Amino acid sequence: MAALLISEVGPRDGLQSVSATMPTADKLRWISALHDAGLREIEVCSFVPARRLPQMADAAEVVRHALTLPGLTVMALVPNLRGARDALAAGVHKLSVPVSASAAHSLANVRMTREDMLAQVRAIADLCREARTGVRLEAAISTAFGCTLQGAVDEDEVIRLASACIAAGADESGLSDTVGYANPAQVRRLFRRLRAEIGVHAGGAHMHNTRGLGLANCLAAYEEGVRTFDASLGGLGGCPHAPGASGNVVTEDLVFMFEAMGVATGVDVAKLITARGPLMAGLPAEPLHGMLPAAGLPRGWRQPDPARA
Amino acid sequence: MAALLISEVGPRDGLQSVSATMPTADKLRWISALHDAGLREIEVCSFVPARRLPQMADAAEVVRHALTLPGLTVMALVPNLRGARDALAAGVHKLSVPVSASAAHSLANVRMTREDMLAQVRAIADLCREARTGVRLEAAISTAFGCTLQGAVDEDEVIRLASACIAAGADESGLSDTVGYANPAQVRRLFRRLRAEIGVHAGGAHMHNTRGLGLANCLAAYEEGVRTFDASLGGLGGCPHAPGASGNVVTEDLVFMFEAMGVATGVDVAKLITARGPLMAGLPAEPLHGMLPAAGLPRGWRQPDPARA
Repeated sequence: MAALLISEVGPRDGLQSVSATMPTADKLRWISALHDAGLREIEVCSFVPARRLPQMADAAEVVRHALTLPGLTVMALVPNLRGARDALAAGVHKLSVPVSASAAHSLANVRMTREDMLAQVRAIADLCREARTGVRLEAAISTAFGCTLQGAVDEDEVIRLASACIAAGADESGLSDTVGYANPAQVRRLFRRLRAEIGVHAGGAHMHNTRGLGLANCLAAYEEGVRTFDASLGGLGGCPHAPGASGNVVTEDLVFMFEAMGVATGVDVAKLITARGPLMAGLPAEPLHGMLPAAGLPRGWRQPDPARA
Repeated sequence: MAALLISEVGPRDGLQSVSATMPTADKLRWISALHDAGLREIEVCSFVPARRLPQMADAAEVVRHALTLPGLTVMALVPNLRGARDALAAGVHKLSVPVSASAAHSLANVRMTREDMLAQVRAIADLCREARTGVRLEAAISTAFGCTLQGAVDEDEVIRLASACIAAGADESGLSDTVGYANPAQVRRLFRRLRAEIGVHAGGAHMHNTRGLGLANCLAAYEEGVRTFDASLGGLGGCPHAPGASGNVVTEDLVFMFEAMGVATGVDVAKLITARGPLMAGLPAEPLHGMLPAAGLPRGWRQPDPARA
């Protein structure tokens, strides 16, 4: 049993942020390699119109493949009810709906106000309940730590919004540092408030490494009791508002940090590095991040059985 | 008053790790810019034979300049008694003697056993006392978190060695992750033991970012009560055993992390980024690290008065 859950978002957050489109066959190989490394939750795609995101045109096929991988929670991002219907039809286990805490970001990202998005969460939650499939619904509060469009985001509003999402029927609500503005003190403060407010419905931490604080922020969240962490292999993906800057927390570095601390992730570090192969094959022009893959494992370091308790 | 001390080691640790030699005039400009940004402790050089480290041949001249900067603690690394004599003659305020916790690294780095180095610490401490100059002596325990030559380093030995350095007359003893092997759990454990063992003589944290954990390790040390942190502008310097990997914790990113957390460093982030100018001018071929300089400050973020309490 792992002590925490690393939720890989590269096939969704990563692939939708790069201009190239990864061929479907490479995607399937990559997702299989991620699963083989021990990852047990993968956000494999988003269900959005293909004309808006051609990188995700093969979403249903990708889900079909992911569903064959034993023990994997297959997750998809859906921005609205229509996407949720498609995702449920494809058979995903978990839906993630992004809800911006920043009013400006909400309009820019999904062309809806925050109130509109709450209505979407409610409609999607109703849909999930009617479908009786046991599909879990996560409302991910994006720009929870600041926004490149409006700057600071009011912390009270973040907590109120997360709470409203749970009231609207979401099973969990986590906090996302969409643009890499968070610092460890803020991370502790907000997750402490989140847990006080919505208890067991408090979701995971989605941190970006734009300003180098990604792992420190994950550490702060861990010390606050958070046990689910989003990350992206090779740090793929990121922030369109900070060109050249690294995006998502790098899965390889994050897993290494926890494993080196003695916290079991269920993920095999060596196999994780191997999983960069199909990613690079499918996106040969894309630079990958990751300090551990560049520097290598410490001499004599042996990972304990990745699946230990 | 700053809540902690950022000790800039770039002019020593950084410059001695690159093959090019920075012209003296650029060094002086760079050190002035670092001081102007608010840094109040700078390791400006090491006193070693010029044939071994031609980058440090101008050590006395560099110290002479640094001594003119108001409020600055001028620090130099000395590997032995002879270097200490030269450093005292030059007028430095603080000496740092590296003492390897790894037996293999000690021989490779200074061609002395750990016992020989302890004898050097004792001799240098005696020299400082006789000189009656109030010069402070730090014994920096290198490879305290692991070693590229021997792998794991026994934690009991690290603590015993730090304690022996204090008994030999050093004023303080800090812990260095020379090769970037440390993890946050280990950092907390070792600094807690260090403080329990030598109390007020416990020195700072010298972390490397080789595997991306540099800031997380500094955060862990901070939470354990450490208030002195070594860092290097642009992450200059590093580990000769991990080619291509980043070295020292990047001063810009570290200062930003603490300031964003509301912890006053006394350092002005914007001026710190400006201080990269003379560094780049003096070492035009050297790539600099730093996520904050690449991504820029968060929108609307204003640093409080850097010198606030």
